Amino acid sequence: MSVPYDDRGLLLGDGLFETVLAKDGRLILMEAHGRRLREGARVLGLPEPDLAALVDVGATALRDAGLETDRAAVRITLTSGSGGRGLDRPDQARPRLFATAAASPSTPAPAALAFAEVRRNAQSPASRLKTLAYLDNVIARRQALAQGADEAILLNTAGKLACAAAANLFWVVEDRLFTPAIDCGVLPGVIRAQVLARAGQCGLRAEEVAVGREALDRADAVFLTNSLVGLRPVNRIGAKTYEGSGAAARLAAALGEFV
Amino acid sequence: MSVPYDDRGLLLGDGLFETVLAKDGRLILMEAHGRRLREGARVLGLPEPDLAALVDVGATALRDAGLETDRAAVRITLTSGSGGRGLDRPDQARPRLFATAAASPSTPAPAALAFAEVRRNAQSPASRLKTLAYLDNVIARRQALAQGADEAILLNTAGKLACAAAANLFWVVEDRLFTPAIDCGVLPGVIRAQVLARAGQCGLRAEEVAVGREALDRADAVFLTNSLVGLRPVNRIGAKTYEGSGAAARLAAALGEFV
Repeated sequence: MSVPYDDRGLLLGDGLFETVLAKDGRLILMEAHGRRLREGARVLGLPEPDLAALVDVGATALRDAGLETDRAAVRITLTSGSGGRGLDRPDQARPRLFATAAASPSTPAPAALAFAEVRRNAQSPASRLKTLAYLDNVIARRQALAQGADEAILLNTAGKLACAAAANLFWVVEDRLFTPAIDCGVLPGVIRAQVLARAGQCGLRAEEVAVGREALDRADAVFLTNSLVGLRPVNRIGAKTYEGSGAAARLAAALGEFV
Repeated sequence: MSVPYDDRGLLLGDGLFETVLAKDGRLILMEAHGRRLREGARVLGLPEPDLAALVDVGATALRDAGLETDRAAVRITLTSGSGGRGLDRPDQARPRLFATAAASPSTPAPAALAFAEVRRNAQSPASRLKTLAYLDNVIARRQALAQGADEAILLNTAGKLACAAAANLFWVVEDRLFTPAIDCGVLPGVIRAQVLARAGQCGLRAEEVAVGREALDRADAVFLTNSLVGLRPVNRIGAKTYEGSGAAARLAAALGEFV
């Protein structure tokens, strides 16, 4: 249950992770999580782990934690392994895979958001991956908490809306659903993809956009998504308040099986 | 010699490090490294470690590795410790401190540089700290190696020169010495500060600047600095070659005791 001091994930953030919801021992949307982790490994130049190995390590963590009959969060971590010299990996990277599990309460109350000072770097591939170098997200969350909010909104370095510290961002204007485009420095969220795929059946036209923060001033409703909470309504951004919306409720219902 | 799976440095890159040169058991410029680490802890909201604790953990690593009479690199790592929930630290963070040591060969040959695609994010405080979230530096180095170079140059997201993947960047034009300003997203290097302090005695006027890559086209000489190599000349950036320079040689000599 530990990694050695020379692990490059520990020393340099050289690795990836997934946070997967488990219900009654089932790893929800595990194939999508596995695809994303494998794609991340490809981008970082690491050997791609088998989906079967990911499922196995996740299921073992769930069993070891005695959470096979609960709602749980399974965190699967892939580091680039030990060795190499400074920034440089060894010639043959041997990734290290492990997982932990913890009870995950069901969907929290609506979120109050605040803008973080730290910006998202769309000019790094890491902004589109779930990497171990997650410190900017930690900083963003701290900056939001310091403003009396629950969660942060990050703009990217070009001033466009990107995401929350640990969630994707959506907003609704009449029958249109908006979310920042991946190019803005956005993690392609597993639930984000499900929401985009279900927008039509909920009577919404979905658009991925690169827009500034003023777009939220005109929104009828705002919500966040991630694998643990599914869809979480936002009731406040700074001083501006938002009502719940029928559109968000329909989308939340459409996600039913995944949250 | 390991950290638990729930360490936040491992999981999120939430922590800091220093790489200190050791010669014959002495930790070179340890006070400056300690100050930088403590300043980083303050920025990240972590308890600041005592200098004595840092020296102790470094000296122990050196002794354990049997490198007390060698030229060695001592890596001191401070993570934000275990616990908390997701991005959020526990109410009382209890940082974890450890160090490792490895033999460090003396100054390598002149460097061939290539520009990385990944950009430095000056709009994150992490760009001015030596944090465990160092993946962008790993990516930059890989992108440079793929171009047949030894080391990367990073521009920041505004297109200004920032630094190398694991070094600060300097260039000389006649009797003027230039280096990117800290605000450009630059780690305030320990050797960088020593070079700036010694420029005058070497007949150079030092300036910290925010300029684009074209500044290097007009340079008489280019060099890198970090704690392990001291001053390393650059002999090539992309297709352009550089000669050694008297100014760089004088600065290297002025650093003598630290490398």
